[in-house]
Amino acid sequence: MIFEKKELKKKSQNISEWYNDVLLKAEIADYGPARGTMVIRPYGYAIWERVQGILDGIFKDYGVQNAYFPLLFPCSLLEKEQEHVEGFSPELAVVTKGGGEDLDDPLVVRPTSETIMYVMYAKWIQSWRDLPVLINQWNNVVRWEKRTHLFLRTLEFLWQEGHTAHATNEEAEAMAKTALSWYKTVYEEYYAIPVVTGVKSEREKFAGAAKTYTVEALMPDGKALQACTSHNLEQNFSTAFEITFQTKEGTREHVYQTSWGFSTRSLGGLFLTHGDDQGLILPPKIAPIQVVIIPIHKKSDDANLIYVYCQDIQETLKNGGVRVIYDDRDEPSVGRRFNEWEVKGVPLRYEVGSQETANRTVTIARRDTGEKIVIDRSDMLIKTQELLGAIQRNLYEKALVFQQANTTDVSSYKEFQSIMNDKRGFIRAFWCESPICEEKIKEETKATTRCLPLDAPEESGSCVSCGKEAKRRWIFAQAY
Amino acid sequence: MIFEKKELKKKSQNISEWYNDVLLKAEIADYGPARGTMVIRPYGYAIWERVQGILDGIFKDYGVQNAYFPLLFPCSLLEKEQEHVEGFSPELAVVTKGGGEDLDDPLVVRPTSETIMYVMYAKWIQSWRDLPVLINQWNNVVRWEKRTHLFLRTLEFLWQEGHTAHATNEEAEAMAKTALSWYKTVYEEYYAIPVVTGVKSEREKFAGAAKTYTVEALMPDGKALQACTSHNLEQNFSTAFEITFQTKEGTREHVYQTSWGFSTRSLGGLFLTHGDDQGLILPPKIAPIQVVIIPIHKKSDDANLIYVYCQDIQETLKNGGVRVIYDDRDEPSVGRRFNEWEVKGVPLRYEVGSQETANRTVTIARRDTGEKIVIDRSDMLIKTQELLGAIQRNLYEKALVFQQANTTDVSSYKEFQSIMNDKRGFIRAFWCESPICEEKIKEETKATTRCLPLDAPEESGSCVSCGKEAKRRWIFAQAY
Repeated sequence: MIFEKKELKKKSQNISEWYNDVLLKAEIADYGPARGTMVIRPYGYAIWERVQGILDGIFKDYGVQNAYFPLLFPCSLLEKEQEHVEGFSPELAVVTKGGGEDLDDPLVVRPTSETIMYVMYAKWIQSWRDLPVLINQWNNVVRWEKRTHLFLRTLEFLWQEGHTAHATNEEAEAMAKTALSWYKTVYEEYYAIPVVTGVKSEREKFAGAAKTYTVEALMPDGKALQACTSHNLEQNFSTAFEITFQTKEGTREHVYQTSWGFSTRSLGGLFLTHGDDQGLILPPKIAPIQVVIIPIHKKSDDANLIYVYCQDIQETLKNGGVRVIYDDRDEPSVGRRFNEWEVKGVPLRYEVGSQETANRTVTIARRDTGEKIVIDRSDMLIKTQELLGAIQRNLYEKALVFQQANTTDVSSYKEFQSIMNDKRGFIRAFWCESPICEEKIKEETKATTRCLPLDAPEESGSCVSCGKEAKRRWIFAQAY
Repeated sequence: MIFEKKELKKKSQNISEWYNDVLLKAEIADYGPARGTMVIRPYGYAIWERVQGILDGIFKDYGVQNAYFPLLFPCSLLEKEQEHVEGFSPELAVVTKGGGEDLDDPLVVRPTSETIMYVMYAKWIQSWRDLPVLINQWNNVVRWEKRTHLFLRTLEFLWQEGHTAHATNEEAEAMAKTALSWYKTVYEEYYAIPVVTGVKSEREKFAGAAKTYTVEALMPDGKALQACTSHNLEQNFSTAFEITFQTKEGTREHVYQTSWGFSTRSLGGLFLTHGDDQGLILPPKIAPIQVVIIPIHKKSDDANLIYVYCQDIQETLKNGGVRVIYDDRDEPSVGRRFNEWEVKGVPLRYEVGSQETANRTVTIARRDTGEKIVIDRSDMLIKTQELLGAIQRNLYEKALVFQQANTTDVSSYKEFQSIMNDKRGFIRAFWCESPICEEKIKEETKATTRCLPLDAPEESGSCVSCGKEAKRRWIFAQAY
């Protein structure tokens, strides 16, 4: 499609304006007609398909099976678990009309599938032989959000939700942590985003969970993104839904459960983290297009020679497993096309003119550094793979340096407030774990507890808010 | 999970009861809590994932890109195309409440995505350079069906919907036919179901289409299943949605469009076609499990020797690309487990006892014929692949023989009525193409026009109903 050349908003000036603008201009997404809904365009969806492929492979290797549960279910199901219904009630979309008639029993559009799945689990699980149940589904969910934001908060989003049932709490706890480790891998190894993993406070945990684990990422504006979560539900839902099993010893017990989800929200974090004033920068491992080849010829050149050379290059890269496209459009101009692929964040641009063709070289532009490199055709494939690896590492390193520079150990509340008024970022601070202090900090600084890092040692300190005894440093931040 | 041994209903006695019973017992699907909704369990979903993989590969090779459009959109969008809204209004689920409040503008849960997609296409398509647009989405849709049936007719179903836009009607027409040919391939080569492809009558076509192509399959009870459809929308929607493009010559024209869908309904046809009184029979090409290995040992046997041999067999099959599982559960009994895998329709069962282990053989039971074959370990892999191929062909051949035996050329209305009162099946008959005769035939025989086959020659005959001149023989049948 024709790229309309209008100045892209600058990330360095206003990240929020840039974010919306770049997603539209890069043809990643568009606004749907209903408030808060979003269209994921083919270039954006191709990234999601890559993420799906990665996670789905991990799940299947572990023995998780995919299934599909209904989108619509009776409101009454949701009410079986008290905390759960209280958490989700304000966000529900409800179908009250079907086939032209008012429904006696309105149906909820799933905001998450614990209840609809567990009413089935209660039917299917009878004996210890039926355990563990390891089921995942890839689907869409709807949550009636008041303020929406492309990818980061939309009325409907796509995700996977894993739901497992186990004979013991130890197994459930291990499962919840394993899912968390998968998610961390996707963020760090594929998205090139360093993250902190930890456990949520009582206040911030999932409605109905005993324990919520979280992956937290720091965005360039100093705000935290809750990147995905994994819950140990223990017996909360199995008690409400009467999911019991006969043990080897012949007794009956409630199962122990987990649920964990990774959504298209994560793509919002990806786009925010790596872009610059020229547009998106996609990490090579998840970029749908890793290399774009652009032939450049002046009137005096033998265009055909250049084309043949380009096609040969494309063939070599493709056979080597590189995701490459050859952009030989007549319009728009070469300059406009350079710009178009920059906005789209393609990691490497190969410029091929008469000089490259004659010398059997390729001129490469790196999207992340802007650097230009001339390489020989003879070792092009290996050099390409090296460059893609280097970009992947560089993006991670840059994000890590930023995260470290913006994570501050704070001991005084004054300093806490001052940081939150200024550059924000992650704050590590002792907290007494009382919800009163948590609430006070939130009101005064807009910062919430993000998590207690998994590797946080037990220490001896005093709460940054009330000064009382505190044992662990929590991560605080303002959040998306 | 434990297989509860209760007599399976007999297909030979009551196919409808058998169908529901076998889907529950084989753990393919289950009923959701809301009327007409269905859960697709892992074993059933694994089949759908295979179908998705096949079609998605075909689409991508052709240049079709996946995307995602919102589930919910304003009712007003649907109203833009008159025939379309009239066709879908009686089937809509409507969200009237969101976030605890009544919505001023209620939202439709998509029954299909023409309207939500085309309002975006109108924005994205400007010039001939933007064409063709070839977009597909894999998603869920909701249609408020009064009478529901697992897979065949459910309130919500999963499908893919391809939506393309072209510069000429010739291109659109070719696209609609190409999609139809992909679907025919899936049915015949993977599902092992012979089909008739053709064009729908005015009365039976999709609401809003200029022309609807269809794949029709004959079920064992003599009823037709509309297996999937592909539509040439011509300029009906582009006129309503003002989707225009600038031609090379500088004029503005409306685009020509197609849409085509393949759904989980197809799985209903698959299960109905091939099963028998013992349960499902899955064609090897789409069976999630192609071979189950069951060790059999008496008390006097060296169980360990048998296990080692079984694992060796499993390894060889797995490395050879065969989808195999090794069922070494202690319970239920071997007989019950044989039965369980029969109900699930696994094409081949490998029985391995002390004799097989000593002789380095395997005893194989074919699910489709019940035949038992002893083969040597040395050429097991190649024999397995041959057997899987033979089963695939046999299932297709049997279905083809049935289809041919139950397709009757009919010239008198009396014969038409008599067949529809008796064994049913496909009837090929001259029809004058007047909706009055079509309606009369439907009222009197419950048979509808299924399609005019693509290869139907122009002939000279008289309408089976009114006796007036007719040029082509149409396919009639009672339909699911």
